[in-house]
Parts: sequence; structure tokens; C-alpha cells
Amino acid sequence: MKLGNRLAAEFIGTFWLVFMGCGAAVLAAKVDGEPGVGIGYLGVALAFGLAVLTMAYAVGHISGGHFNPAVTVGLWLGRRFAAKDVAPYVLTQVVGAVVAAGLLSVVARGRNGFETPSGPGAFATNGFGSNSPGGFSLLSGLIVEVLLTALFVFVILSVTDTRAEKGFGPLAIGFTLTVILLVAIPVTNGSVNPARSTGPALFAGGESLSQLWLFWLAPLLGAAVAGLSYRFVTGAVGAAEPELTRR
Amino acid sequence: MKLGNRLAAEFIGTFWLVFMGCGAAVLAAKVDGEPGVGIGYLGVALAFGLAVLTMAYAVGHISGGHFNPAVTVGLWLGRRFAAKDVAPYVLTQVVGAVVAAGLLSVVARGRNGFETPSGPGAFATNGFGSNSPGGFSLLSGLIVEVLLTALFVFVILSVTDTRAEKGFGPLAIGFTLTVILLVAIPVTNGSVNPARSTGPALFAGGESLSQLWLFWLAPLLGAAVAGLSYRFVTGAVGAAEPELTRR
Amino acid sequence: MKLGNRLAAEFIGTFWLVFMGCGAAVLAAKVDGEPGVGIGYLGVALAFGLAVLTMAYAVGHISGGHFNPAVTVGLWLGRRFAAKDVAPYVLTQVVGAVVAAGLLSVVARGRNGFETPSGPGAFATNGFGSNSPGGFSLLSGLIVEVLLTALFVFVILSVTDTRAEKGFGPLAIGFTLTVILLVAIPVTNGSVNPARSTGPALFAGGESLSQLWLFWLAPLLGAAVAGLSYRFVTGAVGAAEPELTRR
Amino acid sequence: MKLGNRLAAEFIGTFWLVFMGCGAAVLAAKVDGEPGVGIGYLGVALAFGLAVLTMAYAVGHISGGHFNPAVTVGLWLGRRFAAKDVAPYVLTQVVGAVVAAGLLSVVARGRNGFETPSGPGAFATNGFGSNSPGGFSLLSGLIVEVLLTALFVFVILSVTDTRAEKGFGPLAIGFTLTVILLVAIPVTNGSVNPARSTGPALFAGGESLSQLWLFWLAPLLGAAVAGLSYRFVTGAVGAAEPELTRR
Repeated sequence: MKLGNRLAAEFIGTFWLVFMGCGAAVLAAKVDGEPGVGIGYLGVALAFGLAVLTMAYAVGHISGGHFNPAVTVGLWLGRRFAAKDVAPYVLTQVVGAVVAAGLLSVVARGRNGFETPSGPGAFATNGFGSNSPGGFSLLSGLIVEVLLTALFVFVILSVTDTRAEKGFGPLAIGFTLTVILLVAIPVTNGSVNPARSTGPALFAGGESLSQLWLFWLAPLLGAAVAGLSYRFVTGAVGAAEPELTRR
Repeated sequence: MKLGNRLAAEFIGTFWLVFMGCGAAVLAAKVDGEPGVGIGYLGVALAFGLAVLTMAYAVGHISGGHFNPAVTVGLWLGRRFAAKDVAPYVLTQVVGAVVAAGLLSVVARGRNGFETPSGPGAFATNGFGSNSPGGFSLLSGLIVEVLLTALFVFVILSVTDTRAEKGFGPLAIGFTLTVILLVAIPVTNGSVNPARSTGPALFAGGESLSQLWLFWLAPLLGAAVAGLSYRFVTGAVGAAEPELTRR
Repeated sequence: MKLGNRLAAEFIGTFWLVFMGCGAAVLAAKVDGEPGVGIGYLGVALAFGLAVLTMAYAVGHISGGHFNPAVTVGLWLGRRFAAKDVAPYVLTQVVGAVVAAGLLSVVARGRNGFETPSGPGAFATNGFGSNSPGGFSLLSGLIVEVLLTALFVFVILSVTDTRAEKGFGPLAIGFTLTVILLVAIPVTNGSVNPARSTGPALFAGGESLSQLWLFWLAPLLGAAVAGLSYRFVTGAVGAAEPELTRR
Repeated sequence: MKLGNRLAAEFIGTFWLVFMGCGAAVLAAKVDGEPGVGIGYLGVALAFGLAVLTMAYAVGHISGGHFNPAVTVGLWLGRRFAAKDVAPYVLTQVVGAVVAAGLLSVVARGRNGFETPSGPGAFATNGFGSNSPGGFSLLSGLIVEVLLTALFVFVILSVTDTRAEKGFGPLAIGFTLTVILLVAIPVTNGSVNPARSTGPALFAGGESLSQLWLFWLAPLLGAAVAGLSYRFVTGAVGAAEPELTRR
């Protein structure tokens, strides 16, 4: 597969993840004056997870379906992805996320009586402390983002292992993101993906931008732990990689 | 497969999509006086998506499981569907949707104390401006419907590509519709399907009928973009089509 | 497979369907004083659907995984099930449902401050008119139960057809029941299964017992329509049946 | 596969089950002052189920994916798991659950204005009587935990039977746990897993610790019933086991 096609797939996939996940949070989570009609945190968690599930089935055979710099880095450190492709993948993912957030901003502003949202998690941004939806500390946010990204990347490495059942990978990966968000939304609004954090932060500005460093640092740290430890923990053999590198 | 059997499958599938998706919205979304008991936007999004998922598994091997004029047009422009079958498919889908909306109207009127619903999104109609559930503008509605239909058709083209894992297509396609609705319900009440918009509009009348043009124009435009660009974006080769045309 | 093992599988499966589906409705649908914490109609619809999905994967290869007299009759009329096994299957399903409802009644009575529930849909019973959760008429209930059972049996016949993708049948069948309940709960509390209706009605008594006839008549009528018309609608060929009879 | 790698997989899997399932309950179930925004019992049931679904796809080929002493014991009594591995598996599962509960406690304490939770089900503990979320008696709790663990283990034995469709086991097992929790949360807060009960109880102390005996006794009893009766109920033949022992 040509790099151009693979990058197009990563652009579309990351755009989709951010537009649908953040779009569900921004547009549909709450319906004013009608408790229980909006989709709530559960609907947002399903939107993010099903966005990844669906696009991984759609373009997983083209680009591998990362849509996330932490995943790309984790797969590289786990020897499943070529070093030379890391930078173009990450750059493309960030561009896709920024374009998605920009277009979402246009749609959101079309609401009658629109006011710029403020407060923790506004415009689906990630944050900690005074910018955490539930008021959780930097430490809580750090633990959650490092730990859950590590386990996310661990699941991805495992379900794309040659020993796993073929075909079910995207299902497991998408639902892993759903369950991660069911836990992480109150703490940090749920990132585990630096590109997903960057898009909304650029448009919301303020504290969400000054806190953005955590949502690059923590997911990449978690991904590195998973990528470097995977083969020792699971007993995976080296022979598995060449075949998987080009999936 | 004979055209008669294929059209019967499209009729049943589109009937099912509209009766179940719109039925969930009309009958079950809200329970008066009991917040959190009705299924809300999340339940409606799942009803539409699971309706497509289930019927695509049921009759996908007969008719291809389109249930949507935009899908039929997108597959035709992507060279996966014969030009001569487009008109009968689209006509059958519209008839199925109208019959479903009519029968749903009969069921809904059987409610004790029934009053004709009014307001944005009443009887599951699609709309913009004063007829948008969340009060979103024509521009917001146009962006959402064009963009999400394009990505919907892109996913359909991808998961039925010869390179994709076999058997998971209906799962991915159904959940794609769910995630689309999680975002689009507040904006336009969620169409991406001209037949689904036409059925309820005919019975609700008024503004939903005068706005119906958007829900033909925008989905077909999105589908055309996806259908025409798919092979260039993904590097799909021509050889894939003959086999897929008759799936 | 011996008939005894097949009947054991049908007993366990129908017990599971009724205990979990009705149990979710009776025990978990609403949490007093905490709107949005109980599982609501959406959770009940998922409980019924996932109960069938899971047990169909578990014992589908033993008994076919009917758990429903309407399904057994529909498969028989569709020439997928032997006439001589219809009566033992239906009887076993009813016994499984009654035992499940009885045990659920014991669990429910263990609640501190328990009072016998009353009103439409109490103890997960099915009903119409004054016993319909949303106050829907007999006509609305009849349409919904006949139509949705017909489509349920149509999906079952289709996804177990030799032309369908193998392995995905239980997924499609379970989610079909979920989407049916998302529409039908407000109307009749959702039956499409005479055994499921009989269990709770025996313990709740009163109007739910005197209305039970509808929940035998309508599902069996819908199943008969689907079973008798399936091969003509879909162009299924006779050769498919012998192999499927013993699945 | 080496025992060390298998135990690592069980540790990670049980950690994941407890951190995500209990984490969803502790952090996200309710959002103060915003009814319908928190994930409720439905979200918690999905979190537990999807945690098992995802990790069973990830490490099922390594350790079998038990994550639960009752499952390990049930598989052993059903002759699918070697006696000598039962103790190390169970010990590892308990350690994984305790570590998860400890880390979750650290995260939860990072909330601004944190107060130690109290009342039935606080910190996701299991309980009965005055410690049951819905105020259910010991008898109700006992019935639910024995019965649902028995059916859980029955499903696991069935979907990993050589006669079942390959690949769908983790999907069926995860969704079985979801449907179990949809019923059991109000009664006991939903255990069917002694390790899952032990972790939170150690940190919450008090009544949840003094009631812990039930959540070892009942699940193990249910698992024993299922393990010992499976082959007679389903007609499974002895030849199936050797192949499955090492899955």
C-alpha cells in the first residue's frame, strides 16, 4: 500500500474519531430542560468507541487504523510499525483532528442562541484540576491517562497478534476505547490520544491549551510502557512481527 | 438473484429501518413525568443502527442491503452497483419508507389521549432552523448531512471491499449509522437517507415537507463525493468490482 | 443430538431470557428518587436482546436456540424444523418461562418494604389498553406484535439461511430483539414471545392473565406469515433446508 | 504457553475488569445535580461486560481469559482446566483485583472535596440486606449470585465447546456479564466473581468486609453446579476436552 493512501486513511479515521466523539459530547450530551433525553457520558463513550470500531473495520487493512499518535508510537516500540513512518502518521493524525475540531466549531456555532461554552470540559477539551469535569487532580488525571493508554495499546498489540482470532480486532479495540471513556470522562474528559486532545484545545484556547502538555506526555508514556513490555509479558515471539508490520 | 427478490429485500429492509428507527423516536424516546425511563437520543441512535445491522445480516446476501437511496447512488458512482438497477432500488426504498411511516402513524394514534405532535422533529421528521431539534441553522444541517453521508458511504465501500475482513460489514455499517445519529439528532434529527426523511414528512406535512429538499440534496451530494473519490483515496484497484457488484 | 439435551438447552435458554429480561425490568428499570440511575427502557431492551444473543451462542448448536414458541412455529412452517418436535419444544419453553418468573418473584419479594406492584406492565407483564405502559389500544398492540414477530422470524430465517455469513446469526437475532423492544415496550411492554408473556402473567394474575390470549395469538400469527412467505419473498431454494433442520 | 505469561495475563485481565468496572461505578455512575448525564447502572453493566469482552479477545489465547476464581473453578470441575493451575490462577486474580481497587482508591481521592463514600454499594462493594443497593435480603442475594454465576459458567463452557462457532466466545462472555449486572446491581451490586468483590471490600472495610463470605460462597457454589452438570445437560462428549484445556 502506498504511503499516500495510508496517510489518507489515517486522516479520515482521525477526523472521524474527533468529529464524532467530540461532536457527540458538544452537540448531544445534554438537552437543556429535558433530563435523560441527551446521550450523557454513556452516549459519548459509545460515540468515541464506535467511531474507532467502524473506521478500523473500514481502513484497518489500509493504514492499520491507528488514528492516535500514542498508538503509532506504541506499535513502533512494540516492533510492529516502521520507524520511518511514525512522523508522517503522527502529523497526519494531528491535522485530521484539528480539521475535525474546526468544522465542529462551525457546526456548533450554527445553533440558535449559541454562546461560547466555558467551564471544565467545554468544547470536549481534556483537562485536570479546575478543568476536570469532575474536579479531579493532576495526579488522578496522570494516573488515569498513563494507565489506560498503556492498557489500550496492550489490547491493540494483543488482538492484532498472530495468535489472536482474526477479524475481531476492531471490535475489541473500539469497545476498549468505550470502556476507557466510561471511566475517564469525569477525570480528564478522556483522552488517551494526543491528537484528539489537540484539536479541541486549539479552538477552545485558555486553560485547555496550557494543560495540553499532559495529554501528550501521559498517553505517550503509557504507550511506551505497553510497547516495550508487551513481548516479555505475553511471551510473544519475534517471528510474529514481520507479517504484522504491513497489515 | 432475481430483481423481484432483491426489491422485496430492499422494501422489507427500508420498512424495518424507518418503522424501528422512527418508531423508537416517536413512541419511546420520552416517557412523560419519568425522566431517564425513556430511551432518549441514545436509544434512538441504537434503534436506527441496530435496525440496519440486523437487516443487513438478514438480506445483505440478497439485495446488498442498501435501504437508502444515497447508498444506492454512492455504490453506483463507486462502480459497485449496476446503473440500470438504481431507479428500481430507489423507488422501492421510498415506497418502503412511506408504508412504514403510514403504519407507524396508525400505531401512534392508538395512544390514549393522543394529540398530533408538533414542534421540531415531531413524528421523527428531519429539519433545520426552526424545525431542528436543537435549533441549528441550514448551514449546520447542510454540513452535517453532506459530511456524514459521505463518510457513511465511504465506510460501506470500504468494509465491502475485497480487502476487508469478511462478515463484519453489517456490524460496521450499523454501528456507523448509530454514531452518525449520536451526533446528528440535535442538528437535523439525523437523516443521511432521503427515503427515511420522505416517509415521516409525508405524514407530518407542513415545514417538514417544505424542508424535504435538503434531505435529498445533501445525502446524495455526500454519497456522490464518497463514491467518486473512494478508489483514488484508498488505492482500491478496479479488479475488486466485478466480484462485489453482485454481493 | 438427543431430544433430551435439546430440550434442556431450550429450558435453560428460555429461563435465561425471561429471568434476565423481565428481571432487568422488575428490579433495575427505575431507582426511586434517582432519575437516570436506573436502566430504563433502553437497559431492558438490551437485557432481553443480550440474553438471547448470549444463549444463542451458547446452545444454538444444541437446540437451534429458539427460546420462543413463535420462533419454533415459524421455523416449522418455513420447513426448517421437524413437526414432531414442535410440541415438546413449546411445552419446554413455557415451563422454563414459568419457572423463571416464579424465581424472579421470590427475589423481588426479598426487597425491603416490598409491595406487590400494580399498574400497566407491573411485574414485566404484557398488555394493551389500560394495561399498556403507554396507554396504547388493542389495535396498536395487535399491529405491533404481529408485525414485529413476523419480522423477527424473517430475520431468524434469513440469518440461518445457508447463503448468510456463518457465525453472526446470534448477534443479529439478539440485536433484533433489542430493537423490537425499543419500539414495543411503550405499546405492549414488548412480547413477540408467548412463553415470555405467560410466565409473568401467571404470577401477576388479573388483567395481564385475561389479556394473555393476544400474546399467543399475535406472535403466532406473525410467525406463520413469516414462515409461510419466506421462501417466496427471498427466493430461497428447497435444498437449503435439510442441512439447516439439524443446526 | 509458560505459566508466568499466563499468570501475567490473568493479573492484567482481572486488574482491568476491576479497575474499569468498579471505576465506572465509583467515578461515573452519577453526576451530582445533573440527572441523566452520569452513566447509571446501564453504563456500569456495559463497563464490566466490555472490560471482559475486550480483555478476553486480548489474552484469551494466552491464559484462557478467566479473570475470576469462580470461572477457574467451574472450568476445572468441567474438566477444561488442569487442577494444578487452579491455586496460582485464583491467587493471581485476587492480587490483580486488590491492586486495581487500591489504585482506584488513589484516583477517587483526587477529587476536589472528596469524602469517603458510605451507604450500600459504596466504593463498588457487594452486599446484601442493609448493604444491598436496593435493600434486598440475604436470600435474594444468595439466589441471584448462585444462579447467575452458574449460568455465566454454563455460557463460558458452551461457547468454548468445540461445537460452538469459533471467535465469538469473548463477545458472548462479555455480554453475558453485562446482562447479569443489569439484573444484579440493585440486588447485590453484582459480583459473580469473588476476586472482584474482595478488592473493593478490603479498601471500604466495615460491613462490606463482614459480608464478603457470601461473594466467595455463592459464586463458587454456582460455578460448581455448572461445571459438574455441563456435560450431562448438553451431551458434550469427553473427546472435546483435551483440545480445549490449552486454549
